[in-house]
Amino acid sequence: MEETQRLADAIHEGNTEQIESVLEGLDSRRIARVVCALADADQTAMLTALTPEDAAELLEDIPDVEVIEAVSQLSPATAAAILHELPSDEQADLVGALDEEDADAILAAMDPAEAERIAQLVAHDPESAGGLMATEVVSLRRTATVGRVLDRFRKDADRLRRLDVQYAYVTEKPRRLVGVLRLRDLLLADATTRLEDLMIANPLSVSVTADLRELSNLFEEYAFLGVPVVDAEGELLGVVSRSAVDDATQDQAESDFRRSLGLVEEEVRSLPTLRRSRLRLAWLTINILLNVVAASVIAGYQDTLAQVIALAVFLPIISDMSGCSGNQAVAVSMRELSLGLIEPFELLRVWLKEASVGLINGVALGGLIGVVGWLYTGNAWLGLVVGGALGINTLVAVLIGGALPLVLKLRGIDPALAAGPILTTVTDMFGFFLVLSLATAVLPRLVG
Amino acid sequence: MEETQRLADAIHEGNTEQIESVLEGLDSRRIARVVCALADADQTAMLTALTPEDAAELLEDIPDVEVIEAVSQLSPATAAAILHELPSDEQADLVGALDEEDADAILAAMDPAEAERIAQLVAHDPESAGGLMATEVVSLRRTATVGRVLDRFRKDADRLRRLDVQYAYVTEKPRRLVGVLRLRDLLLADATTRLEDLMIANPLSVSVTADLRELSNLFEEYAFLGVPVVDAEGELLGVVSRSAVDDATQDQAESDFRRSLGLVEEEVRSLPTLRRSRLRLAWLTINILLNVVAASVIAGYQDTLAQVIALAVFLPIISDMSGCSGNQAVAVSMRELSLGLIEPFELLRVWLKEASVGLINGVALGGLIGVVGWLYTGNAWLGLVVGGALGINTLVAVLIGGALPLVLKLRGIDPALAAGPILTTVTDMFGFFLVLSLATAVLPRLVG
Repeated sequence: MEETQRLADAIHEGNTEQIESVLEGLDSRRIARVVCALADADQTAMLTALTPEDAAELLEDIPDVEVIEAVSQLSPATAAAILHELPSDEQADLVGALDEEDADAILAAMDPAEAERIAQLVAHDPESAGGLMATEVVSLRRTATVGRVLDRFRKDADRLRRLDVQYAYVTEKPRRLVGVLRLRDLLLADATTRLEDLMIANPLSVSVTADLRELSNLFEEYAFLGVPVVDAEGELLGVVSRSAVDDATQDQAESDFRRSLGLVEEEVRSLPTLRRSRLRLAWLTINILLNVVAASVIAGYQDTLAQVIALAVFLPIISDMSGCSGNQAVAVSMRELSLGLIEPFELLRVWLKEASVGLINGVALGGLIGVVGWLYTGNAWLGLVVGGALGINTLVAVLIGGALPLVLKLRGIDPALAAGPILTTVTDMFGFFLVLSLATAVLPRLVG
Repeated sequence: MEETQRLADAIHEGNTEQIESVLEGLDSRRIARVVCALADADQTAMLTALTPEDAAELLEDIPDVEVIEAVSQLSPATAAAILHELPSDEQADLVGALDEEDADAILAAMDPAEAERIAQLVAHDPESAGGLMATEVVSLRRTATVGRVLDRFRKDADRLRRLDVQYAYVTEKPRRLVGVLRLRDLLLADATTRLEDLMIANPLSVSVTADLRELSNLFEEYAFLGVPVVDAEGELLGVVSRSAVDDATQDQAESDFRRSLGLVEEEVRSLPTLRRSRLRLAWLTINILLNVVAASVIAGYQDTLAQVIALAVFLPIISDMSGCSGNQAVAVSMRELSLGLIEPFELLRVWLKEASVGLINGVALGGLIGVVGWLYTGNAWLGLVVGGALGINTLVAVLIGGALPLVLKLRGIDPALAAGPILTTVTDMFGFFLVLSLATAVLPRLVG
């Protein structure tokens, strides 16, 4: 990539203007690409050369996992200066994702009051209201008039423009939230109106501990762009925006597919090979051990297999197809859970609904593979054995697959990550057992 | 569920007030559940009994696939009245998702001008700016003053509140877009200022044909809440909101996991059993045929298998593990494509990055299964055969898996849907071939 080369050259020459000019010509996706393609040392040199404002802006375009890598390579003073330029919620996300040692060094290099504020934010679960909120809010006194507030706004227009404010919050005493105003209400009101007569009193607010699901339900229920966050005393702490909640939900949804393959951390191919390999191997190693356990069922039936070698052709098919059917049921249950159409304790309801589909699909798939088995060996009994086994195992797989996300959720385990390996191990074992024990039972017919 | 029963009773009694009172007590997730649990005939009766406004509001809480079912059961006149109450973008989505016959009947029952407008919107790709935009916009003349506009706003406050407007657009001649105003700019300006002096001239706009990826890049690049949509002549057609783009992106991301299991349409368990079964079977049937093709490789080596039955234990393991490794690479490539970190033509780059990880993981996994094979049979050569086969096949699987999303994307095929079956078929065939041909080559050592 030509731009990467130009950027690397500018970095090596220490030519900050040239760095800026290369970056300015690129949109944010392109920036992500070009910066990820740089060597680690070049990323460090570039972030150090840029002004903290420019460096902070740059970081917003880069995948999180690369930001963490890059910031941990910076000197604490440089990192602190860049951190200072980020919005409060991003400060907390970044500090929370760093190694404790790196985080402490950077916070020590900041203004103590700001460091303390960030440390408090980091303490919140990143997927809670406290973790998603921005602390930059406009808070007004209830006794002020619209005219006075608008005057203040006009004087402070620059800061307000930067805040990208949608709502102003009305507080009394130090920080107790008593009302909310949309900016457009101010626009439609007379200058002499007092805020307390204009505001929506007792506004909806969320507790700082509210989780992502509560927040997402709330934004689904109401058309608000943001909602105030309060502590146990009702004091205003910040605001959670709809877009912060949407982004967090999207991150979670996007990664279902990756987590189902054991990719729990974000992998981009610019990360070091060993780290990428380790990330993938962790789950593969568990899987191969589960696979060995499942295949040990086959080992118990070597005599049968030796007499009916054709069965070996069907074992991988039954294993794969049962996994597919079961995983479909997993995906439907995960979807229904996220839409709120089922609750984790409604196993019976899921089973009733899966049993009918499992029976139909079991008959269809079992019938298909049974005919293949019959035609291939010329032995109808072999067709019956493999078809019957796949038919029954399809039903078993959808029942287990449909139930697993509910059970795992009840136990606080991530269904996207754990359902697949558990499902395929159980259905493999049961499928192998079915084929081989059925075959053993009718062995004279198969070898006859 | 108690509420479903109460709702069903109210519907059977034809007691509209009682229906409303049950629904009012529920939040939107609960409504989705309760309404999905109703029999189809009851859904129809309820939507007919409610006022069109209430029915339209209700539909916004229900999964799309159920909305389409329900609306297609209504009389065209009732459906038309409800449709009239929906925002323009939802009108178009719904009409576009209905059978052509149902859609035509409903449009025929509407005001011809509105029907014409909806038909025009439906013509746009639902994942383009035209498909995502709302046509409800505030458009102002460039020569108007801030004072006059604010007067007009105050008179029209009710309608404006409902629109949930963030921007006003400035047009000249009939509808040519020349500027944009944030509501807060009006708030901070003097009453005598003319809009043309206050507006941001030559504002950013998108073509009605812009696709989801362009829109999503644009909102990533700029902090706007909405962007105006124009036709080829630069005339203002509507506005695409950030949240409409976020929702569409999220729908797409969420369904990657489901599409990877062949669930191309949304399945909720309240749909008819046969429809659910058919939806799942379509993909399962293709898969089982691919599985039969892959397993036919095994059939070619029956003699070797008959002499070394233990190999049958390892065939399913090699099939499953190669699939897992390959699918991890698929997921990473899909992620990198969506982040813009790779372009579809950069096969070589992906292969270089995958080869290193594939080699390490191949050695690790092959080594592990090799030791298991050795210990289990007491024959080191068997360990070498199965370990070597899995090691090589792991490398092959990540190379194919990493490349597939790029190749499929270039050909306009959905990678989430097609990559899995293609990958596992190829890696199964190659894996079976490796184990069995290696075993055949050293057969005397294995049976010795």
